Amino acid sequence: MSEVVNKAKLAKETTGVLASLTTGQKNEALLVMADALRREAPAIIAANREDLERGRLSGTPESMLDRLALDVGRINSIAEGLQQIAVLPDPIGDTLETIERPNGLNIQKLRVPLGVIGIIYEARPNVTVDAAGLCLKTGNAVVLRGGSSALSSNRQIVEVLHNALANTSMPKNALQLIEDPNRSSVDEMLKLNGLLDVIIPRGGSSLIQNVVLNATVPVIETGAGICHTYLDASALPEMAQNISLNAKAQRPSVCNSMETLLVHKDYANEYLLSLAEVFRDVNVELRGCQETLSFVPWALPATLEDYATEYNDYILNIKIVSDLDEAMQHIAQYGTKHSECIVTEDPDNASRFLQEVDAAAVYHNASTRFTDGFEFGFGAEIGISTQKLHARGPMGLPALTSTKYKIYGTGQIRG
Amino acid sequence: MSEVVNKAKLAKETTGVLASLTTGQKNEALLVMADALRREAPAIIAANREDLERGRLSGTPESMLDRLALDVGRINSIAEGLQQIAVLPDPIGDTLETIERPNGLNIQKLRVPLGVIGIIYEARPNVTVDAAGLCLKTGNAVVLRGGSSALSSNRQIVEVLHNALANTSMPKNALQLIEDPNRSSVDEMLKLNGLLDVIIPRGGSSLIQNVVLNATVPVIETGAGICHTYLDASALPEMAQNISLNAKAQRPSVCNSMETLLVHKDYANEYLLSLAEVFRDVNVELRGCQETLSFVPWALPATLEDYATEYNDYILNIKIVSDLDEAMQHIAQYGTKHSECIVTEDPDNASRFLQEVDAAAVYHNASTRFTDGFEFGFGAEIGISTQKLHARGPMGLPALTSTKYKIYGTGQIRG
Repeated sequence: MSEVVNKAKLAKETTGVLASLTTGQKNEALLVMADALRREAPAIIAANREDLERGRLSGTPESMLDRLALDVGRINSIAEGLQQIAVLPDPIGDTLETIERPNGLNIQKLRVPLGVIGIIYEARPNVTVDAAGLCLKTGNAVVLRGGSSALSSNRQIVEVLHNALANTSMPKNALQLIEDPNRSSVDEMLKLNGLLDVIIPRGGSSLIQNVVLNATVPVIETGAGICHTYLDASALPEMAQNISLNAKAQRPSVCNSMETLLVHKDYANEYLLSLAEVFRDVNVELRGCQETLSFVPWALPATLEDYATEYNDYILNIKIVSDLDEAMQHIAQYGTKHSECIVTEDPDNASRFLQEVDAAAVYHNASTRFTDGFEFGFGAEIGISTQKLHARGPMGLPALTSTKYKIYGTGQIRG
Repeated sequence: MSEVVNKAKLAKETTGVLASLTTGQKNEALLVMADALRREAPAIIAANREDLERGRLSGTPESMLDRLALDVGRINSIAEGLQQIAVLPDPIGDTLETIERPNGLNIQKLRVPLGVIGIIYEARPNVTVDAAGLCLKTGNAVVLRGGSSALSSNRQIVEVLHNALANTSMPKNALQLIEDPNRSSVDEMLKLNGLLDVIIPRGGSSLIQNVVLNATVPVIETGAGICHTYLDASALPEMAQNISLNAKAQRPSVCNSMETLLVHKDYANEYLLSLAEVFRDVNVELRGCQETLSFVPWALPATLEDYATEYNDYILNIKIVSDLDEAMQHIAQYGTKHSECIVTEDPDNASRFLQEVDAAAVYHNASTRFTDGFEFGFGAEIGISTQKLHARGPMGLPALTSTKYKIYGTGQIRG
């Protein structure tokens, strides 16, 4: 039996116990896990150093090494994340619906765990703890497959968590780490129908596309974001500038940041040059449509491929449009249904944009950077779903649950 | 461009208009469709006769021809189905959640259509109308791929519906029928990410398994049901007999009928023989475990494969178990997470069974035959989901929807 099948089976065997744990038992396990991470920080940091050294030797860029690196401060904040999950309300067992039928049947729809969740992710060891915490809080078992460049860190973290769970009601087999660094272990997970109930990919677009296009297990697609901000003719210039600057430059590396700014031609006439200067001041490279170049001489010409690219970097496309419809057509063609914004003082245009643009989150006069579980008030998120099935947008704890009908009868049969 | 891609694109182009139709406009279209079906019944029956003749020539069994056959009565009841869908509440536009954030952002979670739904099904032309009605009512476009043995009927039905839609606000391209009878057109649909938002298979287990194992488009798995009824030691004999007879024999061909009866050894001692006689009286073939054979001499020995078979027929496995745990273990091993029942007067055992058995619908003292959208009071169903993602159990109109966040700001940016 391969490591993947073996560990998925071990995880599945715990689902009955997990589904019956009380909220108190689950929260206690999370707090014990948090304590253990803090206490064992030196061992985790030592293991992390192995990953970093291997990364340096193989020429991994500094920015990626930075995302991989752990120190006491980062481990404390990871542990704090578990404590925050512990205080969130537990959705499991909630009654979502009660139906009384004329024949006397009482039907109750309840929230239950999904079962076994597979998480496939890259080289960020914080995801290991974060995903484990969210899955266990919702009574799910979890099979983690992190990037091989973080393997030593992940192995040490999971060992610490397993030891911690030994003193709790939470079965330690509910948490499994796939250690096989070969791509084949990912492929195997993708086809593990019957053992995994869902796979959630977390990472860049190539990782996500590989999962979406090859999995036969149900997938929740997350993340990829080509987000637009449209400055309508009536946009207030200060607000337009604040929102577009925030959407692009506050943290360009994340999925809810802006890649293309669409500007109404009237707005462009008056304000595009000064707005472009603001972007230049913060070192954002500009790529513009033909018309944009006449306002912003230092911009490079934008290609169709640029419009279809998630830069996650200090680069911005600018396109001038003649009206709302042209803006919405551009979004329909190039958007990834993540987050889209209109800045306008015209309520009809705002209303049309929010109604007609097909995306998880549509904004009137606010930065797309708010598409986030914490910013929405969910207290945590397992990712941002860009698909339409099951969950859409930031996914809090309820996105990690399924439902079940309990039906209470007194001998009813169907006529 | 292939027929599948072409028609899926045409369908997708209508999603904007569909999402903005009022409930009144959608209901009017459904009623116009119902009228047209009644009026054009002769043309539909003539086309259906072609399918039946082709079926007879190729040796299709009578039971399958019966499911394919249409007459005025059946067409009227299909039309009536559309009228029933028209009077159901429209979930689209419902506000599911309103969140006011401390920074003043107002976040609204609304129900929206899924987009384009692919339906892959077999030779029942009523599914053509039924699925179209449910999808259009929820503002979804639909791409239908029915069994080739019903092609003439389906083609005629869709022509009638298209003509009817020409006089309504509903774009006729929202309804598409794939006519290519080759299996390759199904394979093509399964990979149509970006054009289809979800595929729902409706049919036997081989059709469903093909879709689940080969689709890269998100799938809602429906249908396959190996359902159990467990008669506990304290079950009342009359109720136990009524429920198990109903679960097996009221309509054996459907997914919520029982395939295996689990009997507590004490109950078996007193009542199994008389219960088996009742099944014999209605011509149900019995296959039993070793112990069952000592009570029911005319039963055949049940194999492990029998326990894993969805008969959909007048055949029943009987297995004697020593306690509730053994019953639940058998269900965990052989069940398909569809519908499971315990008959007992012991409230603790009932409570454990309903809590611990992992299935879409778990019953105490009622027949599993109630797992059905109509019986649950949903007024209609597109199928019964046996997966845990998105929808579980009978799927009414809300299962055909997604959600969208509309966020109203006054210039908020993220700090």
